[in-house]
Amino acid sequence: MSIGEFDLIARYFDRPVRRAALGIGDDCALLALPPGMQLATSCDMLVEGRHFLSTVAPERLGHKALAVNLSDLAACGAEPLAFTLALALPSADEAFMGGFSRGLLALADAHGCELIGGDTTRGPLNICISVFGQVPAADGSGALLRSGARAGDDLYVSGALGDARLALEAFRGTLSLQGADFETVRRAMEMPQPRVALGQALRGVASSAIDLSDGLLGDLGHVLQRSGVDAVVEVDAVPRSAVLSAQPMAVQRLCTLSGGDDYELLFTAPPGRAAQVSAVGRRTGVALTRIGRIAPRADGGPRPHIGLIDAAGHAVVHVSASFDHFRT
Amino acid sequence: MSIGEFDLIARYFDRPVRRAALGIGDDCALLALPPGMQLATSCDMLVEGRHFLSTVAPERLGHKALAVNLSDLAACGAEPLAFTLALALPSADEAFMGGFSRGLLALADAHGCELIGGDTTRGPLNICISVFGQVPAADGSGALLRSGARAGDDLYVSGALGDARLALEAFRGTLSLQGADFETVRRAMEMPQPRVALGQALRGVASSAIDLSDGLLGDLGHVLQRSGVDAVVEVDAVPRSAVLSAQPMAVQRLCTLSGGDDYELLFTAPPGRAAQVSAVGRRTGVALTRIGRIAPRADGGPRPHIGLIDAAGHAVVHVSASFDHFRT
Repeated sequence: MSIGEFDLIARYFDRPVRRAALGIGDDCALLALPPGMQLATSCDMLVEGRHFLSTVAPERLGHKALAVNLSDLAACGAEPLAFTLALALPSADEAFMGGFSRGLLALADAHGCELIGGDTTRGPLNICISVFGQVPAADGSGALLRSGARAGDDLYVSGALGDARLALEAFRGTLSLQGADFETVRRAMEMPQPRVALGQALRGVASSAIDLSDGLLGDLGHVLQRSGVDAVVEVDAVPRSAVLSAQPMAVQRLCTLSGGDDYELLFTAPPGRAAQVSAVGRRTGVALTRIGRIAPRADGGPRPHIGLIDAAGHAVVHVSASFDHFRT
Repeated sequence: MSIGEFDLIARYFDRPVRRAALGIGDDCALLALPPGMQLATSCDMLVEGRHFLSTVAPERLGHKALAVNLSDLAACGAEPLAFTLALALPSADEAFMGGFSRGLLALADAHGCELIGGDTTRGPLNICISVFGQVPAADGSGALLRSGARAGDDLYVSGALGDARLALEAFRGTLSLQGADFETVRRAMEMPQPRVALGQALRGVASSAIDLSDGLLGDLGHVLQRSGVDAVVEVDAVPRSAVLSAQPMAVQRLCTLSGGDDYELLFTAPPGRAAQVSAVGRRTGVALTRIGRIAPRADGGPRPHIGLIDAAGHAVVHVSASFDHFRT
């Protein structure tokens, strides 16, 4: 059954707004910010075969499309306010739209993030979400940035890494997993939980932060680049699930170091704030693991260096680039 | 030649920001608003074959992708501040990217609207822009909305309508145009000029406004729906170019009433403000034409009615729906 563009919006997406000054239905949405707050915004575009597989349930796809955007707000320590959705669909498929909107709006409601506008059109499936949050403009307790890492800082990661990549490898058939194990890691890939509360709690504690979407080493590289520093990562300290821990070490390292789609937070903090970091972890109920430290830029050059060591302090060789949409 | 995702951003899009607190390169961009200002935001997704033809020059496509978004800000009377760009490309084609970014950034610079973030990925060509502007939160001189039209208001349109549709019909081969005429209307289709200054000048003067993207009758219907009123349009009064005026009357009516892609402003104002409307037209250098009036909702029902009359006041029959991406 096919329905029109305006019916599609009205049926699945048009709900009264509580936080925005004006939601769906006009040329623009309007959003007011309290004094002292800045707007934080990010957008992500999801394409079938690149960011999700055709096998994903529409409800999970709706969840993930917003989750990856909320994860960007989390990395800045921003509080979610609102989002817009632009959607290209091959056809106005009501079964797809019902599931997609259910998953999307459930996650939105869980974070008090309301849909204030968007666009729908016919075309190859493409989901583009822009998310809006607020963060204090003040120095010190303001937005978490990639540029604040300093030599001597500890390097931390939230949760466990690599399950999403493990699921992808299982889908690709390069390894096989038991049914329950597969469902566990598939859920990690399809239903990431953005670390929104953690990001806000880290304001004033972390010196820099980024969310892990392209893989630990690639995303760490962005932090080092922006901060003008190097890093040493203790590869055996990188937290991983029981399912991933049962895999050969080569698979564990691939998935934890170059996995992608983790949507955990990678952040730095001075050693003097270790107790505050622990307290944030307890308060938000998120496991926070120290996985290395920030070092001065060794050669003074423009490219950062990441040293990898094992538990014994020996150098580890790992050759796998970060994910790049135009190189893979 | 193929380049990577991060190179692509750095080479074509990463420029220092002046108005935003933080631009490209972090998880979020940051934007501060002066006290008393609200954020106005809108997003549009452009798909090949739906919103543009494969024959369009990349530079013009870059222009149009931002123009249609700036037009939404114009319709709200907002001042442009910034935008984000999400781009899916079949390949990292440098000739395309060079032209596209040139057209895009030239229009951005002309309106002081800076690129603060985005996303690039490989996929079927898709361009999704979100635009951000500021508008006073104050009543009376705040954002122009679709919901403010009142019975008795005059109905106005800026510029001339229908050239973009005339060009589309020429591309489709349903009519033919002389070379110079074709170039004129093709330019209207590919290089629309968003009425940004006009929109801001109409704050406190117009009672409602919308930008014309789906065709006069369809977009007027949105205003009437939100405002709970009807309208009468004098079809011969709708302004059109010399090129369109040379076409048969049936073509003129199709193009002016149901054309689409005009990106002119349709707005209403009480008759007592006619002199103010004229002054705004002179000040901004944009032709403003009265094309009808707003009437009370005739039947008290939920659907608005648009009466069409000719210069003699006789009813005109016109059957052509608005453009709907899922119905055409």
